[in-house]
Amino acid sequence: MDRNLIIRPLKRSDHDEWRRLWTSYLDFYETAVSEEVYQVSFQRLLSHEIGEYRCFIAEMAGKPVGLAHFLYHRTMWSVEDTCYLMDLFIDPEVRGKGIGRALIEKVHETAKQDGVPGIYWATQEFNYKGRMLYDQVATRTPFIIYEKND
Amino acid sequence: MDRNLIIRPLKRSDHDEWRRLWTSYLDFYETAVSEEVYQVSFQRLLSHEIGEYRCFIAEMAGKPVGLAHFLYHRTMWSVEDTCYLMDLFIDPEVRGKGIGRALIEKVHETAKQDGVPGIYWATQEFNYKGRMLYDQVATRTPFIIYEKND
Amino acid sequence: MDRNLIIRPLKRSDHDEWRRLWTSYLDFYETAVSEEVYQVSFQRLLSHEIGEYRCFIAEMAGKPVGLAHFLYHRTMWSVEDTCYLMDLFIDPEVRGKGIGRALIEKVHETAKQDGVPGIYWATQEFNYKGRMLYDQVATRTPFIIYEKND
Amino acid sequence: MDRNLIIRPLKRSDHDEWRRLWTSYLDFYETAVSEEVYQVSFQRLLSHEIGEYRCFIAEMAGKPVGLAHFLYHRTMWSVEDTCYLMDLFIDPEVRGKGIGRALIEKVHETAKQDGVPGIYWATQEFNYKGRMLYDQVATRTPFIIYEKND
Repeated sequence: MDRNLIIRPLKRSDHDEWRRLWTSYLDFYETAVSEEVYQVSFQRLLSHEIGEYRCFIAEMAGKPVGLAHFLYHRTMWSVEDTCYLMDLFIDPEVRGKGIGRALIEKVHETAKQDGVPGIYWATQEFNYKGRMLYDQVATRTPFIIYEKND
Repeated sequence: MDRNLIIRPLKRSDHDEWRRLWTSYLDFYETAVSEEVYQVSFQRLLSHEIGEYRCFIAEMAGKPVGLAHFLYHRTMWSVEDTCYLMDLFIDPEVRGKGIGRALIEKVHETAKQDGVPGIYWATQEFNYKGRMLYDQVATRTPFIIYEKND
Repeated sequence: MDRNLIIRPLKRSDHDEWRRLWTSYLDFYETAVSEEVYQVSFQRLLSHEIGEYRCFIAEMAGKPVGLAHFLYHRTMWSVEDTCYLMDLFIDPEVRGKGIGRALIEKVHETAKQDGVPGIYWATQEFNYKGRMLYDQVATRTPFIIYEKND
Repeated sequence: MDRNLIIRPLKRSDHDEWRRLWTSYLDFYETAVSEEVYQVSFQRLLSHEIGEYRCFIAEMAGKPVGLAHFLYHRTMWSVEDTCYLMDLFIDPEVRGKGIGRALIEKVHETAKQDGVPGIYWATQEFNYKGRMLYDQVATRTPFIIYEKND
């Protein structure tokens, strides 16, 4: 791992950089969220309450260049919770340096320390660049996702 | 919908039938859980606490024949939570009668009443019988799932 | 296999029933072909020339109820040709009786007798009923198909 | 397209470079073919007979760096044949220069000149680098492939 790379919890002073990274992620998925969602999400990420999502920031040479949002939730398959890695984003210009892998491993290590043995995440079938990494660090399951929003 | 079909919340007196249905579901996935997981899960399903999963039972002519386990959890994409339909199971001998559809719709309606606008679930790509129903009532997303348990 | 089921080569006198079955197949794929294609294809199926497709008819109690079109073609992977099972169709009202399986096996046996060791076919990922059969008699490969028609 | 890039038919004098490229392709798929298959395939690629596969070589600064094998075969969907692009390979060290795209386009143009309107090919679902290109130049179909070799 790059010696200049630090993975650390989100801080309140990260707001602007967090917002920039999160917006880039939303752009990737060709979507957007309201101003209210930005504000509420940022507060929740810092709240450290049970059931709230949390965030790690990847910092390269002092600058935030990536983020991971994750959440613990109940599962029927174990007494322990499971960890849902909700979002992972790395600035395009610093990809290929192990930052995504470091974020995944940090979330996984943290979950284990919190008594949560496994993590999982969803990605689009055609997210080729992401999957090149995921195939190296995790197991593709045969599960696909359906949704009902109407 | 069949006039003899009732979808209702799990009750403590359902324990044996719930356990039978849940075991059939686990058999389908060629897995098993410990006795402790059975006991803890059943307590949690009845606890009605925030962050806990819940259960609806499909009852046909007075007999439990199906179940749905679901969970509300935070999402970064909205202020409201989202609803994860974790498990859905119908006794094989009563399939094709709209029970699965009725369970999905009940979970969806309940979530909406609770201020949770959308539901989603995962299924194995080769769960053909399930997908015949899901294609009718929901939208397949392009998302696939990776997991990391080691 | 049903004792009333016969799998046999297409005959000229099958024209009307072949056309009915082939049209049902095209309907399934929500497509159609021109009158010329019907006529040319039927002639080719009966020509028995090298490089032409061939057809087996499934006959139940004297009535054609299914068909398989197949073609041998060169492959870079072996000296022998490979066999492409192009189309398989069974009348909906007689499904679940082993007719599809019998057609596949007949094509496979015929190919082997002709010195063609393997057969393959393509199906839509969401052809659940077909895949229930294919998973039993064949191997799903990780291959997907791209096309360029413009 | 790179001005030093030429796409041209395979020649007999390409044998050693063709064999090198084709072996690299087979290595990618973690497979191998017999010496007989190498020899027979090379003769067939040069035969120009009906029903035989053909080959285009991509030459960069005078050196073969890529190949495409393709075959015309009958289809039930049209009077015209269709074109199966069987194999495509580019030397890893010269990827990202448009060679794969140029080979696909050359095969497509050639097929059209030969009265064959469409081309198709199969690729592994997890051939991410290939699919990055294919998504740009072609259409992913919902078709998957089954095979039966026993």
